[in-house]
Amino acid sequence: MDIINLDHISANPLLSEVQEAMINAIKGNYGNPSSQHQMGERAMEALESARESVAHLINSAVPKEIVFTSGGTESVNHAIKGIALANSEKGKHIVTCNVEHKSVIRSLRRLKMMGFQITSVPVDGQGRVDPDHIAKAIKDETILVTIMHGNNEIGTIQPIEEIAKITKDKKVLFHTDAVDSVGVVPIDVQKLGVDALSFASNTFYGPTGVGGLYVRRGVKIWPLLDGGTQENNKRGGAENLIGIIGMGAAAELALRDMDARFTHLSHLREKLLQELPNYIDEYIINGHPEHSLPNLVSVSLKYIEGESVMLMLDEDNIAVSTRSACASGSLRASHVLLSTGLEFADAQGTLVLTFGIDNTEADITRFLTHLKETVKTLRELSPLYKKSAKG
Amino acid sequence: MDIINLDHISANPLLSEVQEAMINAIKGNYGNPSSQHQMGERAMEALESARESVAHLINSAVPKEIVFTSGGTESVNHAIKGIALANSEKGKHIVTCNVEHKSVIRSLRRLKMMGFQITSVPVDGQGRVDPDHIAKAIKDETILVTIMHGNNEIGTIQPIEEIAKITKDKKVLFHTDAVDSVGVVPIDVQKLGVDALSFASNTFYGPTGVGGLYVRRGVKIWPLLDGGTQENNKRGGAENLIGIIGMGAAAELALRDMDARFTHLSHLREKLLQELPNYIDEYIINGHPEHSLPNLVSVSLKYIEGESVMLMLDEDNIAVSTRSACASGSLRASHVLLSTGLEFADAQGTLVLTFGIDNTEADITRFLTHLKETVKTLRELSPLYKKSAKG
Repeated sequence: MDIINLDHISANPLLSEVQEAMINAIKGNYGNPSSQHQMGERAMEALESARESVAHLINSAVPKEIVFTSGGTESVNHAIKGIALANSEKGKHIVTCNVEHKSVIRSLRRLKMMGFQITSVPVDGQGRVDPDHIAKAIKDETILVTIMHGNNEIGTIQPIEEIAKITKDKKVLFHTDAVDSVGVVPIDVQKLGVDALSFASNTFYGPTGVGGLYVRRGVKIWPLLDGGTQENNKRGGAENLIGIIGMGAAAELALRDMDARFTHLSHLREKLLQELPNYIDEYIINGHPEHSLPNLVSVSLKYIEGESVMLMLDEDNIAVSTRSACASGSLRASHVLLSTGLEFADAQGTLVLTFGIDNTEADITRFLTHLKETVKTLRELSPLYKKSAKG
Repeated sequence: MDIINLDHISANPLLSEVQEAMINAIKGNYGNPSSQHQMGERAMEALESARESVAHLINSAVPKEIVFTSGGTESVNHAIKGIALANSEKGKHIVTCNVEHKSVIRSLRRLKMMGFQITSVPVDGQGRVDPDHIAKAIKDETILVTIMHGNNEIGTIQPIEEIAKITKDKKVLFHTDAVDSVGVVPIDVQKLGVDALSFASNTFYGPTGVGGLYVRRGVKIWPLLDGGTQENNKRGGAENLIGIIGMGAAAELALRDMDARFTHLSHLREKLLQELPNYIDEYIINGHPEHSLPNLVSVSLKYIEGESVMLMLDEDNIAVSTRSACASGSLRASHVLLSTGLEFADAQGTLVLTFGIDNTEADITRFLTHLKETVKTLRELSPLYKKSAKG
């Protein structure tokens, strides 16, 4: 039986058009875009064409605001460390929030080891930051605010435009980690008003290990990869041209199909949320009912462990996640869920379900049927459940 | 007419077996190696199999000493910055030499901006470092020595084993940039005795934008990309699995065919060097006659500019380089050539010819024939040549 993938956030499949573009690139035997002879020129044209496609997807004013990277994590590291280190003479204070991705948290922790000071503002019960809290956290020494766009564990979308107005007013640079948003919801860097924005190709069905960083013209930033003059002097090293060509093709399709995908994904999400009470009881839906990614549902199942549910569903050929793949294997409860005020035990019972354009209504029904059985089996074994049932 | 590629160092073609492995990976729809369900496990197996192939190529004792990166530049940045920052409580002094690649030079320049002190030792007329100079440059505060293996502009191979004995004795860590050596000449990290070694997939006919960093067990190093727990906690971010699978396939072939390739490339190099005087006069061969990469010839043509030769040969469908592609477009004379004592004018007249396993003897002959014409044409236009002829 085919695997039902409800863990798209860990790995989206490559679209057939993306596969074709990459296979043609592999067979095309491109040169090095930096070479000055004709082999290099052909490669340079392919590279810049992909840059234009990606720039269109996020409505960047000029393609050279896009720096190609090896994925979301590099983009985030480049943005945060690069902006902090390049602007440290103005101050060494950075503002963030409590529900960021590990790449943001660990980049900031690294900067802390290098003498920077970090203020992390709380979120509400639905995982949202209050822009006023950001405004209050900004000090004279603040040089950067980094707040994610769409949360990878609960789907909550932050008020990026409102925060950008504050940072602009206070002359502080603003980066947003939009790795799980770009290609899923419409993103317009000019409308958002951010100075830097990180994204990853796999979110919109391009290859993994490829991504990009939008850096608004005029923003002072150090390269993370010092070397040659590639990427408008912002990132040294020969480009992953095959991957970048794949990302370019994926970006074009994401822009073309944005509305249809959004409708399909929202519909699956709605169906799951509506039907869930017919299959199980005693659960909590995490995140925000309105400001949310259309492809993600976070559900905390009381009295049982998400890890056990995940493993049992895997035996039924259904792939789900308990949290971001980057944090898999860690036994600690999710910092995101705890930040929204969820109890530790409930956080441990959480499943992150992420849909893709290849999912169908039948997938949701099959998942719900298996979930019902799994939850029943596990709760029968759960001392917590028995205690609660007695009480 | 087909292009004759004598600029392999800028971009090697993908071998057909590598293409096939990558196309299968594209069609294989792998998951995320960090996922705990079966889709993840399949991806993890593919990732670890590639790691074993790469570990074999450089004779690393355990595959987890290999960190997959986005290429040589990332590997070098990771090694130099990661080791320097992780060991800075012991001291902030680093030793290097005058003929390193831009990624090394600029990584060190970045560290200088962060309070580190750099000593760069000179090279001899053939581009070689004297290990005694390294020994003398090491101070109590020295934490790292970084010396390249094979030079990307003149092909000179440094005395890495001898230097490693010194660094081991003085308890200083030693990184070597072997980006243009791994897969071209036999590399054995245990025999070399280095603590870290950078390499890139394209050097051995794998994809660009993929590489690796060998880090000996026990070496203290910070990640360059902070984030998830991937790559044995040394590099966050979802892996470029398609590229890594390509590198794995390329590594296996490189190991299998090492001797045959070495013989073929050395033969082409010998042929070029032997026949050159029958076609042109007044030139200088740069580099070392013995300690040299087998696939590279650097020749300085007197009285004319390498850039003009490159462009004229390009019109004849022959691709050559005037220096590393990373430095293309820069008008400054090569720091490598000037460091060997070459005159500025001669440095400007330099061609870097790099052969690949797809080159034939006929390619060399066609190149020499066109070179003769090109040199004749350009020298007739050269005021320097006329002056010299009169004198």
